[in-house]
Amino acid sequence: MPSPLLSEPLKQECASITPTDKALEDTAQTRLDNLTKPRGSLGRLEDIARKLFAIQGQAPITARPARMLTIAADHGVVEEGVASNPQAVTVLMVNNFLAGGAAINALCGAAGAELLVVDAGVAAAPFPEHERLVRARVAQGTANMAVGPAMSVEECVSALELGVSLAENARRDGIHVLGTGEMGIGNTTASSALFCAYFGFSPGDMTGMGAGVPQGGLPHKARVIEQALAVNADAVTSGDPVAILAAVGGLEIAALAGLILGGAARKMAVVIDGFISTAAYAAAWKIRPSVHDYCFFSHGSAEAGHAAALRRLGEPPLLDLGLRLGEGTGAALGFMLLDAAARAYNEMATFGDAGIAMG
Amino acid sequence: MPSPLLSEPLKQECASITPTDKALEDTAQTRLDNLTKPRGSLGRLEDIARKLFAIQGQAPITARPARMLTIAADHGVVEEGVASNPQAVTVLMVNNFLAGGAAINALCGAAGAELLVVDAGVAAAPFPEHERLVRARVAQGTANMAVGPAMSVEECVSALELGVSLAENARRDGIHVLGTGEMGIGNTTASSALFCAYFGFSPGDMTGMGAGVPQGGLPHKARVIEQALAVNADAVTSGDPVAILAAVGGLEIAALAGLILGGAARKMAVVIDGFISTAAYAAAWKIRPSVHDYCFFSHGSAEAGHAAALRRLGEPPLLDLGLRLGEGTGAALGFMLLDAAARAYNEMATFGDAGIAMG
Repeated sequence: MPSPLLSEPLKQECASITPTDKALEDTAQTRLDNLTKPRGSLGRLEDIARKLFAIQGQAPITARPARMLTIAADHGVVEEGVASNPQAVTVLMVNNFLAGGAAINALCGAAGAELLVVDAGVAAAPFPEHERLVRARVAQGTANMAVGPAMSVEECVSALELGVSLAENARRDGIHVLGTGEMGIGNTTASSALFCAYFGFSPGDMTGMGAGVPQGGLPHKARVIEQALAVNADAVTSGDPVAILAAVGGLEIAALAGLILGGAARKMAVVIDGFISTAAYAAAWKIRPSVHDYCFFSHGSAEAGHAAALRRLGEPPLLDLGLRLGEGTGAALGFMLLDAAARAYNEMATFGDAGIAMG
Repeated sequence: MPSPLLSEPLKQECASITPTDKALEDTAQTRLDNLTKPRGSLGRLEDIARKLFAIQGQAPITARPARMLTIAADHGVVEEGVASNPQAVTVLMVNNFLAGGAAINALCGAAGAELLVVDAGVAAAPFPEHERLVRARVAQGTANMAVGPAMSVEECVSALELGVSLAENARRDGIHVLGTGEMGIGNTTASSALFCAYFGFSPGDMTGMGAGVPQGGLPHKARVIEQALAVNADAVTSGDPVAILAAVGGLEIAALAGLILGGAARKMAVVIDGFISTAAYAAAWKIRPSVHDYCFFSHGSAEAGHAAALRRLGEPPLLDLGLRLGEGTGAALGFMLLDAAARAYNEMATFGDAGIAMG
């Protein structure tokens, strides 16, 4: 049963997300075992290829074109002094994305992926039009979750629907692989709160440095998360994933959850970035568990709590490079691995082709 | 002091390999700390960028063009029944590389890297000319190291010189990054023996499945390695890295060691693949320790012993994807990470450029 808080279109969206056909994985494994290499010797690239084949249902499988959605929003909880960077940095970094000067620009360039920046709820004057920007602000940032719900359920549903529309547009543009990225001062605080609310982690175990906390601020940040969970206890104890997402989530996090749902509904592969994107995945997974079959966990972040969250989800990440930047940077590297896996699957000769028998 | 067994040209080659200037790493770190991201948040990509800058000495740093050298040779020790694949598979796989049907073709394609295949000592009729093939056979495979030295010192020196010439040609062709790849039935056996001889590992701890051992064959493979070390005890106990390489190495392994030396001498970055390439690195490092400053360890192989060897070398790998294929496949994925790191270093805006101060 989907959450009763979802809108009718979102309920239909969820209904159209189905588990992939495990028989397709067997078909892919048979081909993988016939490629000119020792069985299993491409390791996790074989896992990727098998999963991509199950998603796409036919050969050749493809990881191109790929589109990164870096979704920005602000967080009212910054009032509590949880972030060393002022909220204005969200705007500055969005402008940096648009000017091409951020890490995500460089890594999307390296991965041959397109980057779209989405304003889902930045708390500032509207951005001017830009070819790489989707202006789709649901609200001017969230409210302070330490004193009440971050969003109304209606706002949360709108942000989820925004994410679905981003997936829909991508599909229409011929995109096969989506990446999740984000920017928003304060969003590790919201993500930590979501992991606690969804999985029962304690705030102390889920609280990390984010992009920076004020001097001596980690215990304070954990206390703020604890307070947010207490203030929003009704939502948290309801167990409803949408109620929880509204209460202690964020607009960009909800939009990413919608992107994941919308991507899975359209049989697109979705490459999940780090800590915040994993929180968005957790929301999507709680809303509709079969999103699992469409998602790839690109990397383990250096942010405290990410490893535990991934373990809880049973999702070992592909990369472990000590990244803790967000924006989608780990997912952009993940695009490269999906492309490598797809090319190996498609292009390698079989033993029959090459006249080789391998022991 | 270089090994007295080296030829005069190789001694000069070694003399020209100098440690990189650590002041350049500081320069790179200063730039990295000024890029629009939290300090250190690009994790190991920052390590890569720092090292590339120290190697190349100037900005922009670059990981393109990259060339993979997949060097093939045969191993007399296969007479002992250490490999489930017949020696003829070496030839078949070289032909597969030339036809474009192997994993390394697909992954070099994904990485945008060139692939050259080198016959350093395949035990079969010579290959016909091919634009991707370097025909430079030093011998028709090695002798059986379980009954005597695998190579004469002269053969080993010739294979090292072959590797240097491959680096020299790459430099002349404008290549900035080299990758180490290999193919040769029996070459995990030789690599295990080298790790034991160089670092005192026991054969049991260093013996893995390679591309396949005959049923129940792991203890037998370990005993063969033990026997090879005993038969070649004079070389092993001499501590001379060239004597050891000749006694229990392989022609492709020696050529890869020469490639690493030649690459370092020409200030090229060298991306090391898995178990066998790491054995070649160990030889090069024993011959000239400052090769360390030019090498990147792309991945931890699933081959038993690789993790221990990398720990002994103090080189944590960049990737851990369960690959155990060789050919250079892990190094090809490593090329992608070097390119991503270089692009982030070169293309990102500084805080000054973007008008951002980050806490």
